[in-house]
Amino acid sequence: MLRPFFIGMLEQITSLKKFMRISLIGAGRVAHHLAHVLKAQHQIVQIYSRSLDKAQHLATQVGAAAIAQVSELNAEVDLVIIAVSDQAIAQVIQEIHPYLSHALVVHTSGSTKLDVLQQHHARSGVFYPLQTFSLEREIDWAQTPLFIEAAFAEDQQVLFNLANSLSSRVYAYTSEQRLSLHLAAVFACNFSNYCYDMAKQVVDAKQVDFSLLYPLILETAHKTTQNEPHHMQTGPAMRGDQNILKMHQDLLAAGQQHALAEVYALMSQQILERHQS
Amino acid sequence: MLRPFFIGMLEQITSLKKFMRISLIGAGRVAHHLAHVLKAQHQIVQIYSRSLDKAQHLATQVGAAAIAQVSELNAEVDLVIIAVSDQAIAQVIQEIHPYLSHALVVHTSGSTKLDVLQQHHARSGVFYPLQTFSLEREIDWAQTPLFIEAAFAEDQQVLFNLANSLSSRVYAYTSEQRLSLHLAAVFACNFSNYCYDMAKQVVDAKQVDFSLLYPLILETAHKTTQNEPHHMQTGPAMRGDQNILKMHQDLLAAGQQHALAEVYALMSQQILERHQS
Repeated sequence: MLRPFFIGMLEQITSLKKFMRISLIGAGRVAHHLAHVLKAQHQIVQIYSRSLDKAQHLATQVGAAAIAQVSELNAEVDLVIIAVSDQAIAQVIQEIHPYLSHALVVHTSGSTKLDVLQQHHARSGVFYPLQTFSLEREIDWAQTPLFIEAAFAEDQQVLFNLANSLSSRVYAYTSEQRLSLHLAAVFACNFSNYCYDMAKQVVDAKQVDFSLLYPLILETAHKTTQNEPHHMQTGPAMRGDQNILKMHQDLLAAGQQHALAEVYALMSQQILERHQS
Repeated sequence: MLRPFFIGMLEQITSLKKFMRISLIGAGRVAHHLAHVLKAQHQIVQIYSRSLDKAQHLATQVGAAAIAQVSELNAEVDLVIIAVSDQAIAQVIQEIHPYLSHALVVHTSGSTKLDVLQQHHARSGVFYPLQTFSLEREIDWAQTPLFIEAAFAEDQQVLFNLANSLSSRVYAYTSEQRLSLHLAAVFACNFSNYCYDMAKQVVDAKQVDFSLLYPLILETAHKTTQNEPHHMQTGPAMRGDQNILKMHQDLLAAGQQHALAEVYALMSQQILERHQS
């Protein structure tokens, strides 16, 4: 008879513990998506961007204050998330540290070591969502793997709780493990997207509609989630079909598509070697 | 009042006209999927393969006769579909032509010209499904674009009707247009699959689970069907982040993953040039 009451109470305590006051450094794609998903269960206090317009644009959407001066940062928040380009992180932490000396500060980068924050700021951590962010598309956060790391065990727990409020797929990864994962993501996402981009350049040159390739693109992606990509490889290079390879290379050469020809030659050669040996 | 009757009659005539007796040359992935989808509305008469075992295996599934000798080919069919590797098509048409002199014969290849059949066999055509075929996965034929070509206008109509019985996306394409499309498909499918394969090699080297990348792979594919891939590009190369590029290349070098390092360098360079210029 008492069980429902206790469960209810525990849930309340858990949800109270989980509520956080969060500020965001940056107003780009990652900041945009994080601010939007986090505002459902937490409070977004400030959005900082060098461009006040950008900060204002996002801040208005999520009920936060926009600032363009680090001196205006509110030190009384539970968490500050740096969501800027990787190359800006080292400078940002040095700029904001004097105003946030005791706050937990995390970055969202796959390839940036925790140490880049930690050497300037003690309570540091990482909150890395393994996903590709575009302003035009919603993120399915429940399915997005989140990787956390923290300098202190207590902060690791705080980040775990926060991540767990968005996704059930939360992992504690070291900076080294995260780097491998991000490198794999470059192949799986950035390079596959560039393959789509090259495919579009091929059809554009002949005024053929790129949307004809959509079913093929989607099927290729879906089948790699069911079977090893190595076993799913198809195409002329996998079959070692030199006639077709030659025809395709001639077509790219005739169309002056030299960059595409270079990729075609290299990837075909590697696929051929991987499957003929 | 008469309308329902006429519509009913027309439908009957149409469906009678569409029924075809079809034989397949080949028992690989494309033959497998074609035989399975075609048997719903048509009759599969014979499956020919040099390997009688392979022919038998597929023939049993689709109620056809298996043969391993071209001399046993039944000339009284409406259509013969050559679904073999591109490099075997020229030889196959010469072998089967003496036994099928008056039948309509098509191949299913994106990059093989109609002429490869036509120079040996008058009633020739092409039936090219733009899709990637694996034995492990069902094909969504209704969404698969089908490209047809024929030496004679009457046969073009026959192929149109057949294609239309599977998919509403049927296009009459010349061999030259089809070649461009197949070249684009190599980039969009074969090369993106190789990117997944390389991503798996990266995570395997660190005993990280490849399935962590599934949401990223699916999101990358889905977003290219909504926005131009050029505008959807993300990642360190697009941002011109030399530090991260260097870290990733060092990691590949340390892991002796030389093939991956070559692709990483080339594609990063091209993405950088395409987005920084």
